[in-house]
Amino acid sequence: MLEVERPIEVFLEILGRRGSFPILWALVRGPQRFSALQQETGLPPRTLSLRLKELEDFALVSRTAYPQVPPRVDYALTKKGEGLKGALEALLEWEKTL
Amino acid sequence: MLEVERPIEVFLEILGRRGSFPILWALVRGPQRFSALQQETGLPPRTLSLRLKELEDFALVSRTAYPQVPPRVDYALTKKGEGLKGALEALLEWEKTL
Repeated sequence: MLEVERPIEVFLEILGRRGSFPILWALVRGPQRFSALQQETGLPPRTLSLRLKELEDFALVSRTAYPQVPPRVDYALTKKGEGLKGALEALLEWEKTL
Repeated sequence: MLEVERPIEVFLEILGRRGSFPILWALVRGPQRFSALQQETGLPPRTLSLRLKELEDFALVSRTAYPQVPPRVDYALTKKGEGLKGALEALLEWEKTL
């Protein structure tokens, strides 16, 4: 892991990993289940789980498990994650200019 | 190198590399020489050169060498690079909320 300093650079390193952007963008619309995220991002399950764990560790995503059968788990943006909406939108606008 | 698809994900992978963000942010203020970028970013010369080459390859940064002694080289944002200003500003705003 390269030595990085500023919070923004730590975050950008995570955002640069495959799948982080589509996951965050999907969650901008609201909480999603794993299966819905898998469908929307097209990520293999292991990559999706890894990215979600990293985003959770960085406190951008929360994971809520419901005590029911079959088990249900929702993923959602935290307040810190929601703060990213503007930047994600600006990045999407920029992508359109490419 | 992980297989990435969308242009935005290719770019975010580069933006996630150490130094990319401070370099781009320094160039938002206008063309800079290598030494000025080195001072502003605090990056070791080899890392700075590598990042600048990657940003050039991705057409976000241009490099202009002036035929004079001693040699002078300016780095600047391309039009595509300037289009990122909004996203970089939004990311900086978000960093302040952390």
